[in-house]
Amino acid sequence: MRKILLSIFLSAAAIPAMSPTMAGEPIVLREMGSFHIGGRVVEISGKPVKELVLGAGGVPAKIDPNGLYQVEQMYVQYFLPQNRKGKYPLLMWHGGGLTGVTYETTPDGREGWMNMFIRQGWDVYNSDAVERGRSGFAPPDVWNSEPNFLTKANPFERFRIGEGPGSWNADPARMKVIPGNQFPVEGYDNFTKQIVPRWTNTDAAIIAAYTALVDKICPCVLLFHSQAGGFGFTVAQSRPDKIKAIVAVEPAVAGDKAKAGALKNIPTLVVYGDNIPLDSRWPKMRQLGVDYAEAVRSAGGSVDVVNLPEVGIKGNSHMLMMDKNNGQIADLIQKWLTDKGMVE
Amino acid sequence: MRKILLSIFLSAAAIPAMSPTMAGEPIVLREMGSFHIGGRVVEISGKPVKELVLGAGGVPAKIDPNGLYQVEQMYVQYFLPQNRKGKYPLLMWHGGGLTGVTYETTPDGREGWMNMFIRQGWDVYNSDAVERGRSGFAPPDVWNSEPNFLTKANPFERFRIGEGPGSWNADPARMKVIPGNQFPVEGYDNFTKQIVPRWTNTDAAIIAAYTALVDKICPCVLLFHSQAGGFGFTVAQSRPDKIKAIVAVEPAVAGDKAKAGALKNIPTLVVYGDNIPLDSRWPKMRQLGVDYAEAVRSAGGSVDVVNLPEVGIKGNSHMLMMDKNNGQIADLIQKWLTDKGMVE
Repeated sequence: MRKILLSIFLSAAAIPAMSPTMAGEPIVLREMGSFHIGGRVVEISGKPVKELVLGAGGVPAKIDPNGLYQVEQMYVQYFLPQNRKGKYPLLMWHGGGLTGVTYETTPDGREGWMNMFIRQGWDVYNSDAVERGRSGFAPPDVWNSEPNFLTKANPFERFRIGEGPGSWNADPARMKVIPGNQFPVEGYDNFTKQIVPRWTNTDAAIIAAYTALVDKICPCVLLFHSQAGGFGFTVAQSRPDKIKAIVAVEPAVAGDKAKAGALKNIPTLVVYGDNIPLDSRWPKMRQLGVDYAEAVRSAGGSVDVVNLPEVGIKGNSHMLMMDKNNGQIADLIQKWLTDKGMVE
Repeated sequence: MRKILLSIFLSAAAIPAMSPTMAGEPIVLREMGSFHIGGRVVEISGKPVKELVLGAGGVPAKIDPNGLYQVEQMYVQYFLPQNRKGKYPLLMWHGGGLTGVTYETTPDGREGWMNMFIRQGWDVYNSDAVERGRSGFAPPDVWNSEPNFLTKANPFERFRIGEGPGSWNADPARMKVIPGNQFPVEGYDNFTKQIVPRWTNTDAAIIAAYTALVDKICPCVLLFHSQAGGFGFTVAQSRPDKIKAIVAVEPAVAGDKAKAGALKNIPTLVVYGDNIPLDSRWPKMRQLGVDYAEAVRSAGGSVDVVNLPEVGIKGNSHMLMMDKNNGQIADLIQKWLTDKGMVE
């Protein structure tokens, strides 16, 4: 692994930063749009009819809650650049409690990875996983569980922005930020506005919708983050012929090691940020990914695990795509994708 | 009013359709991105700490539900064309139980109004109202109410697509569609995937976030639909100097007639589709809008109310922006905005 790290470090050091040079230029799209995919229809019965005024001053409407419901579909927005250079579409899958907004403008107002990869000529498909954002969520009778909500403090203390429990404070001057942190702390309030409620028993529905997306759009490259490690590796295991490369950004969950051999023909990059040993959970989560990578390699596959501080890129939080050096990490990924023959 | 209708009819008939001629050309953007705006921080206390596995195979995390929460923010996505022709930004506000997806690709895969108005040179800001889509929703302790869910049948029967109650059927061959209807019924299943849960006591929060958006982005033109009639007219009443024109598309709710005079310097277009007399609620909802328009006129304002069938445009459902002739209606709106001096 040491040799791989070294070669990537040297390559990364040699290429110019992506975002500063391109951010001012127009984005030329041959097409942009959106669709929903997947989902199923469920029946709810035995409930009383309600009469509701749907908006103050409106005319009351009878709402019969009994009947068929559309649930578990997924929203996908796509941007297809005029000057396409990526050989395959690039699917971006966000992490837990978040939506596709993860890859849009950063919370402090800089360009995010979605724009950066569109500018590099990738057909980008950015989705909101089932249960979140523009995908909507199902009636309580369908999932039989409650959504969970995160406090403003929670991601600050779990995402290696602050120095663990108790590090967040409503007064920015009293926040205990990890020294040298790349997260744009001045945008942290905005980041908390991106957080959406999450359920904990919807994985199967989420995987079903992502699988439907892969069946529609791929062959493709998958780029996924955090919780979506579990979704991305699982979908790749079941659709290996459709996935041409994988970029796993701090996967918090890995695939099934017993099925890791399915990835043997899929070049895979796994990227981790900095300060992992400072956190109570991240060393174990990284180990899950490292072990899975080893299982893929044992089956004859090729996985490059890059710990950014080991290649000289310091201070990255869990939200690499929003960090101040997000362009530098996008460059590293773009270079790797180019090396793997994914760019025309 | 008859004279106004006639002049618009003649103008509309004279201009070429917008979408068929432009849909194949590239979209050139000088910028695109997103942000969240508004909202407030609330405190929740006295709840037990939970331990949750946030995703199958993940590492358990302690979730303390007590603390400060970010709530009631709003998501806004913007697309700024290189060849800007609209004098002001165009803000698009969707209707109830929906998100900004309303204005994106139609459920049957054609270009929606968002693309059409970007192609016409408008800086478009498309939002998800508070509580919906990428804006997220608040913990149950904050709103003290439950979200409501719509069956697959409900919009079909309320939006003047089918012939009222009982007209929807899971078997397309047995659906009772209003003859000559412009809604793309083959995309109705996809349309139901766009529907998100709705609360009924969040109007104040929604209006606060829209007001924050207007304070950030405007002077501007507002284009709003259905439930957002209540939001759009209300915000215009409180920020009349910032709103340069209003396009109200089938507003289901009107403003406050006592405050209608605030709109006296804002040229306003109100558009209604077809088959309103067939519905049990729409005649009354249209009357609310017509009465409000009259109140604005009485105060010296200028409001053009266009009933599309009276100008020869037949068969439109409540979802005009998705109907098969959505380009024709976009053309009518664009022509009106041009007549009102909103285009450079």
